[in-house]
Amino acid sequence: MNPYTLSRPVCIIGLGLIGGSLLRDLAGRNHPVFGYNHSTSGARRAAKQGYDVADDLTTVLTRAEAEQALIVIAVPFGAVASVLDQIAQHAPTTGITDVVSVKSHVYELIKQRDMQHRYVGGHPMAGTAQSGWDNSQQGLFAGAAWAVTYDYATEVDKVGPEWTALFSDVVRLTAMVKAEAMPVRVDGHDEAVARVSHLPHVLAESLAVVGDRGGILAQSLAAGSFKDATRVAGTRAELVRQMCETNAPAVVKALDEILVLLHAARDSLAAPEPSIAELASAGYSARTRLEARSGARAESVSPVKISSRPVLRLSPGGHGWVSQLRQAESMGGRIEVF
Amino acid sequence: MNPYTLSRPVCIIGLGLIGGSLLRDLAGRNHPVFGYNHSTSGARRAAKQGYDVADDLTTVLTRAEAEQALIVIAVPFGAVASVLDQIAQHAPTTGITDVVSVKSHVYELIKQRDMQHRYVGGHPMAGTAQSGWDNSQQGLFAGAAWAVTYDYATEVDKVGPEWTALFSDVVRLTAMVKAEAMPVRVDGHDEAVARVSHLPHVLAESLAVVGDRGGILAQSLAAGSFKDATRVAGTRAELVRQMCETNAPAVVKALDEILVLLHAARDSLAAPEPSIAELASAGYSARTRLEARSGARAESVSPVKISSRPVLRLSPGGHGWVSQLRQAESMGGRIEVF
Repeated sequence: MNPYTLSRPVCIIGLGLIGGSLLRDLAGRNHPVFGYNHSTSGARRAAKQGYDVADDLTTVLTRAEAEQALIVIAVPFGAVASVLDQIAQHAPTTGITDVVSVKSHVYELIKQRDMQHRYVGGHPMAGTAQSGWDNSQQGLFAGAAWAVTYDYATEVDKVGPEWTALFSDVVRLTAMVKAEAMPVRVDGHDEAVARVSHLPHVLAESLAVVGDRGGILAQSLAAGSFKDATRVAGTRAELVRQMCETNAPAVVKALDEILVLLHAARDSLAAPEPSIAELASAGYSARTRLEARSGARAESVSPVKISSRPVLRLSPGGHGWVSQLRQAESMGGRIEVF
Repeated sequence: MNPYTLSRPVCIIGLGLIGGSLLRDLAGRNHPVFGYNHSTSGARRAAKQGYDVADDLTTVLTRAEAEQALIVIAVPFGAVASVLDQIAQHAPTTGITDVVSVKSHVYELIKQRDMQHRYVGGHPMAGTAQSGWDNSQQGLFAGAAWAVTYDYATEVDKVGPEWTALFSDVVRLTAMVKAEAMPVRVDGHDEAVARVSHLPHVLAESLAVVGDRGGILAQSLAAGSFKDATRVAGTRAELVRQMCETNAPAVVKALDEILVLLHAARDSLAAPEPSIAELASAGYSARTRLEARSGARAESVSPVKISSRPVLRLSPGGHGWVSQLRQAESMGGRIEVF
């Protein structure tokens, strides 16, 4: 089978920035895809643009069951439980994935409903400060990491062929939209995104407030460093709350780490001989390592985009494949399935 | 006189990112400009590219005196005192400006040498994470704010015509490179840049360290929000030290403000009902205000770049002009001189 083609249609529940962009990408590649949007007007606008979209959840889920579509849950976390309940009722045997940015709480909801055997979690590391269907766009996921969880394969003695087929299809889904599937377990994912996604949001919000307090002079003087650093503060407050509050323990841990660094910097700058030597040097080294690992190639002048993530090709369900997933996870690698 | 043309040649001491870019811009507009670079190899490369550059400071300053050039000090803060001493000796009557990012310490050095009557401070809010002549470029200052200090005019009963002519020429210099001259006093400037430039650097360094500690998985998952937020951590550690350490009191104050916000966020996220509602909403409002004031127009789709800074046209030395400067400063405005 073509490693870049799913074996089933895709049904997207929730057509905001992520769900909408996914729908556009799949439709653009002529893969069978249909979706549901909570907002009647949003659903109508999408339908008017020629997409197969409706605003009645029962109908959409019933169709997903009939077509054995892969259901992608792309609603805010607060709505996930109720969508899962609807799926249990109207699409009791389909495969399920999601794009929610915190994975442990979703997995709890899945376990409460005993759906682990039909669920593979996902999280595309892509987005803009904008949200909603009208901001969704083709190509949003190109080159982005797309976390794919595999906890279930580590929790049971041997996963069945249905789950491995589902896992494969979720990986193929990410490949179809040119994202890079990174296998992770739920806890490792949540700890990592607290550091590299949720903490940056908290800092951006705080910096925006401090800059704003400087009044119009400070804002008028603000240049690239400030604008870049506060960009994600333009994200709707509800979305930031959802990310940070559902991942609170990991975000608190990351905050505690950065608070230690900031207090140390503050104290050494307040000393009779002000110094920020230690932090400036550590930060520069950290950033340089980061660029060497991920940034440099992506910013290459070459028109051919080369991924800096190591790739591991594996056959889901094959001998030792779960060890291969762990290995890929430990080196921040991406996978392809065959 | 054409408001965009200086009445004298320009002599740039130090050809790093800022000094080099200024030299390229002025030479590109055929304005007489020459410079000095500490590094012999850097000076040679610039000269090879056709620029009027030498590596002997005495010769360059003697020429500046003979031609009554406007001297632009573009060396790191640590070298400013010695450059001023050389200027006192070899160019005792020229006008002086500078591009150092913290203004109070430079002004102290100026006062220690009783040079206030021949000095107008400057600070272009432009830069990249790169440094040095080889990274300098034409057009770096287009649309950027360029702080121009006027403390001297508030310290004496009436400034003489030489100082007002110098002030005018510094404003014209900024206009020639398409920057926007913003009148500020030294203390207000340093407090403002602590918030919108130095604090972002401290945060970026700290975030880079916390992200790096997340290991290769976290870095591989890092997307736009993390990369944007840590971009300026790529600035050479010495430059960050210079900025933050010479402006330590204002940076400590800004750090204290953000520490209060971060501790509050941490505590409310660690509560039994985790919440980040307050910060998320305050940050979003602050960012939205900021965009309305400065970002929105700059990001306009219109090919004609319209400044969002209010403009005040004034005649230096004219009746009430110092009040006009204060007024422009209080509203984060830019000035043009006639």
